[in-house]
Amino acid sequence: MRTSIATVSLSGTLTEKLTAAARAGFDGVEIFENDLLASPLTPREIRARCADLGLTVDLYQPMRDVEAVPAELFARNLRRARHKFGLMRELGADTVLVCSSVDPEAVDDDALAAAHLRELADLAQNFGIRVAYEALAWGRHVSTYDHAWRIVEAAGHPALGTCLDSFHILSRGSDPKGIEDIPGEKIFFLQLADAPLPAMDVLQWSRHHRCFPGQGGLDVAGLVRHVLRTGYAGPLSLEVFNDVFRQAEAAPTAVDARRSLLALQEEVSGAEGKRPSAPLTATPVLPAPVVPTGFAFAELVAADAEPLTGLLAALGFARTARHRSKPVDLWQQGEARILVNTGAVVRRDGAQLAAVGLESPDPGGAAGRAEALLAPVLPRRRAPEDAPLDAVAAPDGTELFFCDTRRDARHTDWRADFEDVGQAPAVPGVRRIDHLALTQPWHHFDEAALFHRSVLGLKAEESVDVADPYGLQRSRALSNADGTVRIVLTVGAAPTDDTVHAQHIAFATDDVVAAARRLRDAGAPLLPIPANYYDDLAARYEFTDGELETYRELGILYDRDEHGGNLRHCYTRTVGRVFFELIQRDGGHRGYGARNAPVRLAAQHAVRTASALGGG
Amino acid sequence: MRTSIATVSLSGTLTEKLTAAARAGFDGVEIFENDLLASPLTPREIRARCADLGLTVDLYQPMRDVEAVPAELFARNLRRARHKFGLMRELGADTVLVCSSVDPEAVDDDALAAAHLRELADLAQNFGIRVAYEALAWGRHVSTYDHAWRIVEAAGHPALGTCLDSFHILSRGSDPKGIEDIPGEKIFFLQLADAPLPAMDVLQWSRHHRCFPGQGGLDVAGLVRHVLRTGYAGPLSLEVFNDVFRQAEAAPTAVDARRSLLALQEEVSGAEGKRPSAPLTATPVLPAPVVPTGFAFAELVAADAEPLTGLLAALGFARTARHRSKPVDLWQQGEARILVNTGAVVRRDGAQLAAVGLESPDPGGAAGRAEALLAPVLPRRRAPEDAPLDAVAAPDGTELFFCDTRRDARHTDWRADFEDVGQAPAVPGVRRIDHLALTQPWHHFDEAALFHRSVLGLKAEESVDVADPYGLQRSRALSNADGTVRIVLTVGAAPTDDTVHAQHIAFATDDVVAAARRLRDAGAPLLPIPANYYDDLAARYEFTDGELETYRELGILYDRDEHGGNLRHCYTRTVGRVFFELIQRDGGHRGYGARNAPVRLAAQHAVRTASALGGG
Repeated sequence: MRTSIATVSLSGTLTEKLTAAARAGFDGVEIFENDLLASPLTPREIRARCADLGLTVDLYQPMRDVEAVPAELFARNLRRARHKFGLMRELGADTVLVCSSVDPEAVDDDALAAAHLRELADLAQNFGIRVAYEALAWGRHVSTYDHAWRIVEAAGHPALGTCLDSFHILSRGSDPKGIEDIPGEKIFFLQLADAPLPAMDVLQWSRHHRCFPGQGGLDVAGLVRHVLRTGYAGPLSLEVFNDVFRQAEAAPTAVDARRSLLALQEEVSGAEGKRPSAPLTATPVLPAPVVPTGFAFAELVAADAEPLTGLLAALGFARTARHRSKPVDLWQQGEARILVNTGAVVRRDGAQLAAVGLESPDPGGAAGRAEALLAPVLPRRRAPEDAPLDAVAAPDGTELFFCDTRRDARHTDWRADFEDVGQAPAVPGVRRIDHLALTQPWHHFDEAALFHRSVLGLKAEESVDVADPYGLQRSRALSNADGTVRIVLTVGAAPTDDTVHAQHIAFATDDVVAAARRLRDAGAPLLPIPANYYDDLAARYEFTDGELETYRELGILYDRDEHGGNLRHCYTRTVGRVFFELIQRDGGHRGYGARNAPVRLAAQHAVRTASALGGG
Repeated sequence: MRTSIATVSLSGTLTEKLTAAARAGFDGVEIFENDLLASPLTPREIRARCADLGLTVDLYQPMRDVEAVPAELFARNLRRARHKFGLMRELGADTVLVCSSVDPEAVDDDALAAAHLRELADLAQNFGIRVAYEALAWGRHVSTYDHAWRIVEAAGHPALGTCLDSFHILSRGSDPKGIEDIPGEKIFFLQLADAPLPAMDVLQWSRHHRCFPGQGGLDVAGLVRHVLRTGYAGPLSLEVFNDVFRQAEAAPTAVDARRSLLALQEEVSGAEGKRPSAPLTATPVLPAPVVPTGFAFAELVAADAEPLTGLLAALGFARTARHRSKPVDLWQQGEARILVNTGAVVRRDGAQLAAVGLESPDPGGAAGRAEALLAPVLPRRRAPEDAPLDAVAAPDGTELFFCDTRRDARHTDWRADFEDVGQAPAVPGVRRIDHLALTQPWHHFDEAALFHRSVLGLKAEESVDVADPYGLQRSRALSNADGTVRIVLTVGAAPTDDTVHAQHIAFATDDVVAAARRLRDAGAPLLPIPANYYDDLAARYEFTDGELETYRELGILYDRDEHGGNLRHCYTRTVGRVFFELIQRDGGHRGYGARNAPVRLAAQHAVRTASALGGG
């Protein structure tokens, strides 16, 4: 039989994947859409590459959330499909994978699903394309292979068949014998994967994935409250089995553990409200959280300031002040302030984000809470003449300064240490720091999230996995209530891979197009985004005349949330271990463009490879 | 409230864990039994250490598989408990954790469980000890906290209470509100852990843990058979999402993937038996597996032979031959043959296992199958005058030679390349190679298992996780039907940690005590095993007079399987990246002493630390 492999099964760029598949003797490939989007090759070039390698393109995948949705949405889905079918013809792929819908708007209506799939197959047929419909194990209404087949059978269209996937079938415990009732010619494709069974086993879950309270998803505080109501007076004891803790240094893990119990006790007491039971009154009282209200500054350290300051100048920043006693410059634009420090110890691989100034309504109180939660407190005065600053170290070593930046403050304002030297920026395009992305050391991701949540009183969103060409990156956003402080914690897939996963600073702008143009005109190249990404945007959304062309020209990424909010953002090149983002939020978009991150990460890898080769 | 932490939650030696817990401000600890067993400190010394650090010993844990078993087994359990209660008094621990039984012999009889626990509590009370009974989420008959409490209540003994664990309760989806029905004074202990929810989610399972067919636990071949019976004629395509493959090199992953499909097609065809359907006849035919029948030799490479050969001599090996053209010596004892090669490229960190000679009934056929399964074939002749040898490379780079060692063979015997130089060993204590343990590079564990299974036709056992002080080691044994070829694949917990997880060669002996004595008398120290391990053996099993003392004196580890088979084994010190094991199997014991591995690993870490400090 012929053998194929999905490009998603292999690591690297699309070109690397195709070469590896051909060398191993596969006859064909499934092209995973994200691999195509991140590739600089056009669909025609990919087709030619496959032909040169002796590979057929057996499947294009996946098309998602097509069927059994409201009419207006289905019309948009057909529009998207038409784009993709055109692309598939250029790619030389004659079969497309359609996964059963997970769209919240999808309805449980097999007849509607069949009608929509029939219409889709009709369209596909015009392009010479076949549609293979597959039940995802977690499909919203269709999650088993026999259900998917009943819908295909009901649709009764020659260009519509089913795709079987061993994982989706066997992971649900479905009996595969029923497959024999499907005519072979209606099985358009067969995807194979195995999986270790213990992943679903509570013993394995316990042995490998326990974590400290507040770092997972169980309601531990609720349980403790029930226990305390019984009059239990024994200790609260942590028993955690975890592959990470088993190999992490014991001392910081123990601190992380104690912090988790302190935060847990606070949560337990707080929810008890006015009826604290006896043991709860014995709980050590933590100072209340002092939630930061904004970013005062971000501090970059570098051996050589020039590449950074050149980029800041191109972004419209001006050097407005210099520290009285240290080689630290303040660069400012709007309310965005960047300190560039050339006097600190710097890693060999260049510039990095070393400290963050957080606006605090009560800097002393904020530091007191951090100390009570076992954060290392940094010396308050750096030099005798410096303004006192309350500061602690985050688990990743980033210094957090609690500041109170007032326009007419005296000694308490950190800016008193600075002397004015420059003028205000001519064209203020950046308003303030939108968010900071802090790369965490491998193993310290959950600890960092708990730290920022408990010490700073920020709210954490769910973790998001983002595909990088060479691994998965995990990412978790924390923010205050009005979004004036946003911190994104990221961690690479492997201990060694932190080159591309650099820290970054995102600047809020009201006109990202103008800001990007200014940057480019100042000679600072933006991160180049592949053309395939914009073709996908065209399939996905409707834009006003010229809008998409502008994004394509400048390398601006686009996202729309479920409420119609828009996000437009673009990236500078990386300097040392830091890069900058320009971000424009409209219509209340609160996200970070996670869907665009794989394309951005692939583009950063491509730039790095090109530089290594002496190009780009 | 007082706070505690279980030593299992932290990494390192027991001493490191206690120090870290105290510094982080915990009031007490739970002592995990395995941490005590692996510690060179006596229970009294541990108690003193805790007191010095200001820590109380709040719990000793766990006691397993005690209750609701046949009378004779329960009598043994009480004997074991008496030993442990004595130990706990020395340790200063007044509460012991008893987990609900997972013993296959345990019966579903709450009254019997209550009676046994009452008897256990009676015994405990004599020692001033309390028994805290906890429902494991995967307990055989008792898996929920309310069930455990009903049994405790029925037992009605003042020294018996329950232990609650947030993970066991919440992971089962139990309603924690019912906890409030338990009197607080009967809750003897509260263990807290959180866990990420998605570990149980099929989407996460799919996204992170798919693997190639034959590397997991799903019956992919069975499913494919059903599909082929429909007349399906499309490709077999792999769609695998996996955190490891995302970051592994694409080329070897693609080879691994193709090998998996070749093995799958063979499995599918084979099971079809005499009724191959049309597509099955188109399956590429693999040469039949040629299962090896024994070890011909193991080849060690080293820059400096002396430390290795000194150890081999102490083990009773004699240098019996030398290669005609290369700096390779043959050391032999019984049918165990070790080649020591000082002419090859060697890693800086010293001696390593580089090649394995496998006895094969058909060396050419074995190599042909390996080649068909995409194993790199090594040049057949190393020098013009050498005997032709069929050899391939395993995924970890180990060279596998297919040999036919006959007493009176000529040119086909690999020994024809060697000239006799020495005499036979004086005291043959070692009979043959029992097994080889090959440390796999991080990421290549499943690939290696599939390789050895498909290429060599060995049967694979389940993977076993073994706790090392600084991480988990995963281990999987493969063997032929009669156990004359056994290969254990191991992988460290992290990419960097392969120092201690050295390769090793285990030699079968009929009298491990005599072999160990001879080794010691020859001046080669055995790996020292902590005294606490032997105290635990005394609690666990009955021995004949003096037997345990002999093991303790020599550092011999002991294991008994469920059929009464015995395993006795001991270890040499490590040379470079290699160490040796002496192993005696009696009564059909087929295991490798996985239960002893944590103690062995901790002892190896201790030796390494002592050498680093210039000591022992």
